[in-house]
Amino acid sequence: MGSLTDIGVAAGINILSALGFLLAFAVLRIQPINDRVYFPKWYLKGTRSSPRSMGTVFSKFVNADLSTYIRFLNWMPAALQMPEPELIEHAGLDSAVYVRIYLLGLKIFVPIAVLAFIVLVPINWASGTLEKEKSLSYDQIDKLSISNLGKGSKRFWAHIVMAYVFTFWTFFVLYREYKVVTTMRLRFLAIQNRRADQFTVLVRNVPPDPDETVSEHVEHFFAVNHRDHYLSHQTVYNANTLAGLVEQKKGLQNWLVYYENQHAKNPAKKPTMKTGLWGLWGKRVDAIEHYTTAIEELCKQEDEERHKVITDPNAIMPAAFVSFKSRWGAAVCAQTQQTSNPTLWLTEWAPEPRDVFWPNLAIPFVELSVRRLIMAVALFFLTFFFMIPIAIVQSMANLDDIERMLPFLKPIIERNSLKSIVQGFLPGIALKIFLILLPTFLVMMSKIEGHTSLSGLDRRTASKYYLFLFVNVFLGSVITGTAFQQLNNFIHQSANKIPEIVGESIPMKATFFITYVMVDGWAGVAAEVLRLKPLVMFHIKNTFLVRTERDREQAMDPGSLDFGTTEPRIQLYFLLGLVYAVVTPILLPFIIVFFSLAYLVFRHQIINVYNQQYESGAQFWPDVQRRLVIALIVSQILLLGLLSTQEAEKSTVALLPLPVLSIWFHYVCKGRFEPAFIKFPLQDAMVKDTLERANDPTLNLREYLKDAYVHPVFQKNDIYEFAGIDEEEKNPMVATKRQSRMNTPVDSKFNSSSGTNEGEFSRMAPT
Amino acid sequence: MGSLTDIGVAAGINILSALGFLLAFAVLRIQPINDRVYFPKWYLKGTRSSPRSMGTVFSKFVNADLSTYIRFLNWMPAALQMPEPELIEHAGLDSAVYVRIYLLGLKIFVPIAVLAFIVLVPINWASGTLEKEKSLSYDQIDKLSISNLGKGSKRFWAHIVMAYVFTFWTFFVLYREYKVVTTMRLRFLAIQNRRADQFTVLVRNVPPDPDETVSEHVEHFFAVNHRDHYLSHQTVYNANTLAGLVEQKKGLQNWLVYYENQHAKNPAKKPTMKTGLWGLWGKRVDAIEHYTTAIEELCKQEDEERHKVITDPNAIMPAAFVSFKSRWGAAVCAQTQQTSNPTLWLTEWAPEPRDVFWPNLAIPFVELSVRRLIMAVALFFLTFFFMIPIAIVQSMANLDDIERMLPFLKPIIERNSLKSIVQGFLPGIALKIFLILLPTFLVMMSKIEGHTSLSGLDRRTASKYYLFLFVNVFLGSVITGTAFQQLNNFIHQSANKIPEIVGESIPMKATFFITYVMVDGWAGVAAEVLRLKPLVMFHIKNTFLVRTERDREQAMDPGSLDFGTTEPRIQLYFLLGLVYAVVTPILLPFIIVFFSLAYLVFRHQIINVYNQQYESGAQFWPDVQRRLVIALIVSQILLLGLLSTQEAEKSTVALLPLPVLSIWFHYVCKGRFEPAFIKFPLQDAMVKDTLERANDPTLNLREYLKDAYVHPVFQKNDIYEFAGIDEEEKNPMVATKRQSRMNTPVDSKFNSSSGTNEGEFSRMAPT
Repeated sequence: MGSLTDIGVAAGINILSALGFLLAFAVLRIQPINDRVYFPKWYLKGTRSSPRSMGTVFSKFVNADLSTYIRFLNWMPAALQMPEPELIEHAGLDSAVYVRIYLLGLKIFVPIAVLAFIVLVPINWASGTLEKEKSLSYDQIDKLSISNLGKGSKRFWAHIVMAYVFTFWTFFVLYREYKVVTTMRLRFLAIQNRRADQFTVLVRNVPPDPDETVSEHVEHFFAVNHRDHYLSHQTVYNANTLAGLVEQKKGLQNWLVYYENQHAKNPAKKPTMKTGLWGLWGKRVDAIEHYTTAIEELCKQEDEERHKVITDPNAIMPAAFVSFKSRWGAAVCAQTQQTSNPTLWLTEWAPEPRDVFWPNLAIPFVELSVRRLIMAVALFFLTFFFMIPIAIVQSMANLDDIERMLPFLKPIIERNSLKSIVQGFLPGIALKIFLILLPTFLVMMSKIEGHTSLSGLDRRTASKYYLFLFVNVFLGSVITGTAFQQLNNFIHQSANKIPEIVGESIPMKATFFITYVMVDGWAGVAAEVLRLKPLVMFHIKNTFLVRTERDREQAMDPGSLDFGTTEPRIQLYFLLGLVYAVVTPILLPFIIVFFSLAYLVFRHQIINVYNQQYESGAQFWPDVQRRLVIALIVSQILLLGLLSTQEAEKSTVALLPLPVLSIWFHYVCKGRFEPAFIKFPLQDAMVKDTLERANDPTLNLREYLKDAYVHPVFQKNDIYEFAGIDEEEKNPMVATKRQSRMNTPVDSKFNSSSGTNEGEFSRMAPT
Repeated sequence: MGSLTDIGVAAGINILSALGFLLAFAVLRIQPINDRVYFPKWYLKGTRSSPRSMGTVFSKFVNADLSTYIRFLNWMPAALQMPEPELIEHAGLDSAVYVRIYLLGLKIFVPIAVLAFIVLVPINWASGTLEKEKSLSYDQIDKLSISNLGKGSKRFWAHIVMAYVFTFWTFFVLYREYKVVTTMRLRFLAIQNRRADQFTVLVRNVPPDPDETVSEHVEHFFAVNHRDHYLSHQTVYNANTLAGLVEQKKGLQNWLVYYENQHAKNPAKKPTMKTGLWGLWGKRVDAIEHYTTAIEELCKQEDEERHKVITDPNAIMPAAFVSFKSRWGAAVCAQTQQTSNPTLWLTEWAPEPRDVFWPNLAIPFVELSVRRLIMAVALFFLTFFFMIPIAIVQSMANLDDIERMLPFLKPIIERNSLKSIVQGFLPGIALKIFLILLPTFLVMMSKIEGHTSLSGLDRRTASKYYLFLFVNVFLGSVITGTAFQQLNNFIHQSANKIPEIVGESIPMKATFFITYVMVDGWAGVAAEVLRLKPLVMFHIKNTFLVRTERDREQAMDPGSLDFGTTEPRIQLYFLLGLVYAVVTPILLPFIIVFFSLAYLVFRHQIINVYNQQYESGAQFWPDVQRRLVIALIVSQILLLGLLSTQEAEKSTVALLPLPVLSIWFHYVCKGRFEPAFIKFPLQDAMVKDTLERANDPTLNLREYLKDAYVHPVFQKNDIYEFAGIDEEEKNPMVATKRQSRMNTPVDSKFNSSSGTNEGEFSRMAPT
């Protein structure tokens, strides 16, 4: 338990470091040279061009206008100025709703904090039990917390009443927010322009047919069972090898560009390289020549593979994107069961083309359930036993062992100063590396589970990460010890003892969590705005690879909101806030500062920086809501446990309805709002269909949908036309307009908003 | 722990009583006078007529043909002879699948019993630990059980291996059975004749509209959003008061008939009655006259109410049965979401007309969720605290208190013999009455939850009853004590202690459960076939009320399979079998006898007696499967607990994968088969639609569906035509064929099979 002074010092340090980051950001962002690091979103939208093209050489790199330095904080109001509808149009609904999570934190905790400081803090302060019991070491913070009430105190009733008030306030805010987000989503879907995924359904587990190809089978099935609505379909190719080759070629091309740049700077000297591992060993060859040949070789391989994929029937996956004549038809197909065997002809809404996770499209039903079983077991072990392999690595990384195995390192290791440093660091490093790699593991696990969209992967990763954080950060900090020890303890504890143990140590950990909020929250958010890694990477690439304006565009790394890892972290703050609201309200202001700062920073980032990879229409909100309700229930159960150790039995009974009410609240919200995130109502589909028919009666939908769901490696490529011709011969009534195809990938890659997709209008022209 | 002799004696007694019941049944069933009690199903089908109409007066009542007495057991093979497809056609799929549950018991337990007796029993017997420890009192039964192995014995591995074998066998049988039942259901739905519910969807929570009536609103909504498929609809009236009046009138008519019969037997004496409570007090009046006036009065009230319901807009509920032009259209509407607010325009498959539970059709969404919350809490208290009110009643039912409150009873109560009897019985009687009333409570609770079909009510009641039986019969017998005490214990026990406590006492309770199986199972089933209550009731009604053949038909009470209370009882036997399969295999033969006997008896009953109220197409099977898997998991966890008290730690770890696998198995089956019980696949709908269009191109579907979903009190009644005319004026193109309406209630009431509904053919005639 720290003293108020300790916390003050910690707060000071963290405020200073956060301010340092913000200051550095304020200075760096107005330097023209960093413009593409801090405003990539605008470049991608095409509304901002390189500032270097005008002015002197010096002013191209450094901002010499001193007046801008004076207004260095004006990005903050600027971040808040963009109204929400514009924000949705600019950055997409996912991002706009994502920053609302921070706002939600403020909505929940500001009134709670005010109430807590008016009611609970004075009560806690005035009780003064800790002062009487001189034997205990206590602190000012504890005087403000529930610990200051003696056992069996009547004043606990204030806390119980407040627990009810806080719960109902949270219910109210959550319900309203869910309603608002649902409305936003529905409006977003309603005002969206025509998009391929509105008409398309992803069909998986197409059963094999002895007489027909997958494509024929799909066509016949839907032409019969959705007679009036079926339009066309696009089969899915297993192009994973091909995608690998394309990726590999891109890497080689980068090196080629690098060496060509070297050569251009110093035309006298031909750049050379070694062919062995990492360029360290092997024969020295002319680098440009080497890479040119390698790329040519790869191009040939790629062409062969491309041809093979298109001609080999085994490369066709038993899945297809089926398009319908109307949104109504697609909505019907996505929501209904097709055959009596519910594991065949599985239909679901097609994700956006850029949201599709192609490698997972061909997993059969039984394999899927086996994969999920294995991943569930793996997640359990990862969460509770992750310390075991790390401990093994740590023991293996023992210096004495290393000495034995690699004797030639002995003289270096034996130096005492080095030895002690390494000995001290190695164990920590193993853990740190694990924690850095953890999100990657979790994404891999989600991929193995077989989700078909990137947004789905992100959501599943977030669930896993939340479990890990809850068990290892929250519980792990409250009851010190590894997760495995906790599990062991919990199994051997009675059901009513567990909340008591956790609840009892909650007040004692307040100081720790306040520091955690400052270090991880405040400083973390301030570091986010600085974008140190993209800043460095951009300048490296800019120096070595960039030749044309287009290269420079590719060197930008706008990044995106990483829902899978950032949302669970926010949830941790919600959990802390709800748990400590009644117990130690002094923690709340720190959380409020976090939410305000984060809201500001992330709003700025989604406006100026991030470029989302996909647009799911805020489909993640049910997950957010569910985890918030879980946090609420956890806080209620822990309060129950805490009070039952304080000889306040009646109060325990008085609190029992809270978790029941919370569970019920969850189901009410789920029933009321969740379908809007899964299904697409027929009425809305009908309205959009009718409007469209009135506005654009001559639309050639078949042409519009033709190439929407083509695997990215086939896009912009002529060989893909094999399939196109094939399909056309079957449907000769459709006029060809192949030149329009090139638009699709470009605009779906760079434009995440729905309302301004100008590329689409060009393709809407009547045929 | 009872000895083998004790069990032998108990078995003897129960076998004798079961044989007694069977013998009584065998004699009673061949008496012509009881024909309508034991073969009502055939009367309802119209293939059997009263045997009294021929022969002498004596032979009308008593069977004098001695040869039939010799073959008194021939109902047993007869019950098995009817092949399953015929059984489905005769008794409906629900009943046919229901008896398969008993067969499933045999399929699971016969091979398990054989294996257990070959492998486990010799191992248990040969161990002989109990013989060595002279201090323990043990018994022959225990020598056959797992208790005979000493602590830490290596032989536990045999039990672990067997646990795996039994689990996988159960998986196999369950999976196959689920598959078979799914196929049966799909085939049943596929070969069904045209039925109103195939085309109809129940729409609830129609939002109020300021300008339109409910009927207009429904019509407009579906005409727009299901433009090509909407056909017609039937609004729902709140006719609960009217239904009450009709019911009341029926009671009065029964009395009138009774007195008229009295008068007919003795024309000299006019029957009289008293008007007060139960005919004990009040003025003496002429009975026939009194009832005639009362019925007339009621008829007038009924007419008024009927008129009020039809004309009052407030009596129209915000719900409707919407019919579509094709099964495809109905399947689409039932499976999709209609509007962006998922609590409005809720659509689901319409239950069969006779399966509709009318009073619940108008509950709004929010009220539904409140009701379910309250019922969940109530169920919790009912299950765990039901002893408290009973204890209060018992203490109030104390004789001394009764004496104080009703002093005039004192002389009677003071008689010693009576007093001791009453004192001994009263507490037990309160409990017994509670247990008899329990199913009624549970049905009431399910009704309050707001399910819209009788089959749904039955399924929900079964879930509740299973929880009650599991907690109070199974756990309550294993750990003696009330459920409340157990709950208290369990909360204060650690998570791994609970299975240990329960598991440890499992072997000791084997004798008790063997007796339970014999008393509740064997004798209970044998009593079922005797139908004592319907037998008595029939003869009473026959004597006092029956005048015409039609009266006699109404006096029959064929009864029906009461899924809500009988299925949970079967599940209890599954639970016992699975739990004891590894622990005390000697219990298995008793369970096998139960399943065989029950299979025989219930197959006989569904062929000859029961008349199902509704046909849900075996929609209950997912519930059956779920509870079976729960029983399996419980058995695995208890074995785990038992072994962990036997100092066999490794074995505990070896058993851990079992519950995980079982949970996974549950989800696999759920994903694979459950949709077939909830959704109707579009392909199947399309096939049936196409066939029908080919076979019957001139069908007037609107006419066919017209009166299918009319509230029962409006059927056969002219005043109902108000609504009919109203609807017709809107759709003048439909020719009227009103005379055909009279068929509907009759055949849907008496004909539960799907294939032989001749009444339907008459209505299929082209218009």
